[in-house]
Amino acid sequence: MKYVRFRDPAGAVRRGEYENGTVHFANESYDLASDEIDVLPPSEPSKVVCIGRNYADHADEMGSDLPDRPMLFLKPPNALAAHGDAVTVPAGKERIDHEAELGVVIGEQCRHVSEADAMDVVEGFTCVNDVSNRDDQRREQNWIRGKAFDGAAPMGPVLATPDEVPGDAFVRSRVNGELKQDGSREQLIFSIPELIAEITTYLTLEPGDVIATGTPEGVGPLEDGDDVEIEVEGVGSLEHSVRIP
Amino acid sequence: MKYVRFRDPAGAVRRGEYENGTVHFANESYDLASDEIDVLPPSEPSKVVCIGRNYADHADEMGSDLPDRPMLFLKPPNALAAHGDAVTVPAGKERIDHEAELGVVIGEQCRHVSEADAMDVVEGFTCVNDVSNRDDQRREQNWIRGKAFDGAAPMGPVLATPDEVPGDAFVRSRVNGELKQDGSREQLIFSIPELIAEITTYLTLEPGDVIATGTPEGVGPLEDGDDVEIEVEGVGSLEHSVRIP
Repeated sequence: MKYVRFRDPAGAVRRGEYENGTVHFANESYDLASDEIDVLPPSEPSKVVCIGRNYADHADEMGSDLPDRPMLFLKPPNALAAHGDAVTVPAGKERIDHEAELGVVIGEQCRHVSEADAMDVVEGFTCVNDVSNRDDQRREQNWIRGKAFDGAAPMGPVLATPDEVPGDAFVRSRVNGELKQDGSREQLIFSIPELIAEITTYLTLEPGDVIATGTPEGVGPLEDGDDVEIEVEGVGSLEHSVRIP
Repeated sequence: MKYVRFRDPAGAVRRGEYENGTVHFANESYDLASDEIDVLPPSEPSKVVCIGRNYADHADEMGSDLPDRPMLFLKPPNALAAHGDAVTVPAGKERIDHEAELGVVIGEQCRHVSEADAMDVVEGFTCVNDVSNRDDQRREQNWIRGKAFDGAAPMGPVLATPDEVPGDAFVRSRVNGELKQDGSREQLIFSIPELIAEITTYLTLEPGDVIATGTPEGVGPLEDGDDVEIEVEGVGSLEHSVRIP
């Protein structure tokens, strides 16, 4: 199953079933691309828990060592953006990068989840762009200006249940139609169950919380007006543009 | 004015006026210490934005340089704990520290706030303990296991409007009644208006969001069963105990 959250023409927030570009709710159907509906992020996370350096080829391109345990950071709710948004990043920065990621949407409140039970707390998968402001990320201990700014976490539009997404699903980004990243879920250094077990050793995850599982190699700079696409096999494509003041 | 959020005997969440140990709501009055009510954190933050190294004497005791701009990190909603709670920290850690802080509660949604206008978005002040797991903080880039774990942000019980809190308000901690930290709001390297201006350059603050303004010198280890008190002049005292599994 695939779902899309949206605001309907009357202003009500709905989660409809998604199929072939059309969202169905009750007796109504809407084209995902139509102006009739506002597409929303697939959930309302209290936090997005992000994983750094979870693909060996990306750690290498960043000149970073491989972590011996998952490298965690956070994006708060102000960072959310949706499919179709024009994401305005902080002003005056030299280097804003895209980072294509497979997002895991949590389905139930949980803590101290074992790897064996971890997939039971997963509602589904979505597409995430971990938009990164390298100017500040390089200068700060905790990546707040670098990765927690307004609009730093575009996600959606589709939430796909786990059965829809193959174990070797590709994770791709395109900028203005040109392929930039092309990784696979198989390449994750720490698997999704390992991430959930580690995170919930410390933090309670809430329904709607999202884990952004890290990005493969090929990250690169965005220019004002660029169109970005993040595609995850079995989920679909997140598209947004970028405004760099 | 001073306020306390609480759950009343019928289970309803209320914000009452607070005076001399008593909370008043409508025609009812409750002793803050009574079992009749559950004291709650003073707001429902979507995020707690914390400031590192904002007192010179604390930066010195940690062997850290003074920052040239506010050092930011985040605690998500799962970190919240309330006055009177027994806070259970992650298991198996050698060093869990208290850090007494003046908390700023935001009153309205805001971004790009100037220093001159910053106090207009402040609803009031509260007490925060920035509970810190040094074992992990020392080993990770972003302080998630170190400072974002469940219970890492006890706060409250009182929200005091800005007029209640002097410019040189003391910020103190006691452990089992013994004074450990005794700083002053005057010692903040970056003032509250400077912090709000810098944070809102990057992030939207929401009503109820809290800024934890940093801790003075004297941080130190907690033991299982310790009683911690964080006192801010003009606000009052936050008290909680600690469970270290």
